[in-house]
Amino acid sequence: MHKGAGATHWFIPDAYIPEKSSGLLTSHESVCVLNSSSDDAKLLFTIFFEDREPLEDIAVIVPGRRTLHIRTSSLQKDGAGIPVGVPYAIEVKSDIPIIVQYSRLDSTQAENALMSVVAYAVQ
Amino acid sequence: MHKGAGATHWFIPDAYIPEKSSGLLTSHESVCVLNSSSDDAKLLFTIFFEDREPLEDIAVIVPGRRTLHIRTSSLQKDGAGIPVGVPYAIEVKSDIPIIVQYSRLDSTQAENALMSVVAYAVQ
Amino acid sequence: MHKGAGATHWFIPDAYIPEKSSGLLTSHESVCVLNSSSDDAKLLFTIFFEDREPLEDIAVIVPGRRTLHIRTSSLQKDGAGIPVGVPYAIEVKSDIPIIVQYSRLDSTQAENALMSVVAYAVQ
Amino acid sequence: MHKGAGATHWFIPDAYIPEKSSGLLTSHESVCVLNSSSDDAKLLFTIFFEDREPLEDIAVIVPGRRTLHIRTSSLQKDGAGIPVGVPYAIEVKSDIPIIVQYSRLDSTQAENALMSVVAYAVQ
Repeated sequence: MHKGAGATHWFIPDAYIPEKSSGLLTSHESVCVLNSSSDDAKLLFTIFFEDREPLEDIAVIVPGRRTLHIRTSSLQKDGAGIPVGVPYAIEVKSDIPIIVQYSRLDSTQAENALMSVVAYAVQ
Repeated sequence: MHKGAGATHWFIPDAYIPEKSSGLLTSHESVCVLNSSSDDAKLLFTIFFEDREPLEDIAVIVPGRRTLHIRTSSLQKDGAGIPVGVPYAIEVKSDIPIIVQYSRLDSTQAENALMSVVAYAVQ
Repeated sequence: MHKGAGATHWFIPDAYIPEKSSGLLTSHESVCVLNSSSDDAKLLFTIFFEDREPLEDIAVIVPGRRTLHIRTSSLQKDGAGIPVGVPYAIEVKSDIPIIVQYSRLDSTQAENALMSVVAYAVQ
Repeated sequence: MHKGAGATHWFIPDAYIPEKSSGLLTSHESVCVLNSSSDDAKLLFTIFFEDREPLEDIAVIVPGRRTLHIRTSSLQKDGAGIPVGVPYAIEVKSDIPIIVQYSRLDSTQAENALMSVVAYAVQ
């Protein structure tokens, strides 16, 4: 049995789904989670906006000894997802320690732009 | 009531507002703040330069349970803002814990370049 | 004699070898290790996937007072390497403290996109 | 009088000066230092390579209450600088706390690619 590593509470202040795509790749963001333990990790995402109440507690499971690269456009609660073209922020809570990295591919122009950060962990 | 998370003192050493834009998007920087607490966060920005005294204590409010993606070109004190095309650095102080990420879109060329860092937190 | 600095256990949740290259540069990822001590560092890489068991304990040596920028496409175990075009994650263990940074160059389009993070260190 | 913030020992494992530039901007790297204290900071850079001994103790001064964005191509010791097109790594020591961020602009292709990390601080 493997023990998990990392932290159980993570934040990404700069999230944004670009409205446009061109060229070979589609604009998107991924929240990349690594669960190095042998147990499943039960995650809850909360989405914060600039001008409205947060979308709270969207559930995602990451199996043990697996990574999951989660497209933010796939996160939904009661049919409500994250709108494109608006600034937002992400909170991730997990029942066991995980590691979280956030990356964005912007293909608004035909040539791509990439950014990535290891999320901020509350220790 | 939600408690805040993060830190109250953050630094971004590499800030720069590109002089040019081309293509579909405008060159800009954003200081992205997440205030996960139920209370408003009162922020003070100080801007450091290579060759002159800092511009101190520019006030910004981030409401409770909200994110704010602040364009650096909007920061002003007594009518003085941040000049374009000069290297500078940013200090952010807050009265309650927040999380800070900094991102830059450079569209000097028609195709875009992106960079992002979680700011450095003083614990 | 120089003592090492950093940590002995590092994680990179967002790894991906792009399938395509165009223009002057080849799409690739590098795991960049700095061993500031006078002794060799013995590293073990584990590669995590979304849909299969991890590839465990690929050995790499970083000599003392040297850096090594390791192409992920060079990592192999019993003839098995990392497939291109699939999301994966990386764990690096070392017998002495090192510092690990991960960077990706994507040249799917002729113009390049770059991203980089300091890996997550378990303290 | 202002006290400094940050750390006195920093590392950047992935450094590289691109050989080519094209378009409007020149390929370069910057080590961006913020000295928020009222005193000057005395820095010593050590440059690590893959295949030769380090270049040790290149001195740089960052004045009090100032930022300095240092082009790595300007770092020299006894006439020896950092060669272009080779992977290397950077250590920064300071006599007082500072904050260090590293950024690279690659304009090998006409359109630019950007990457940035807050350096790794030894606490």
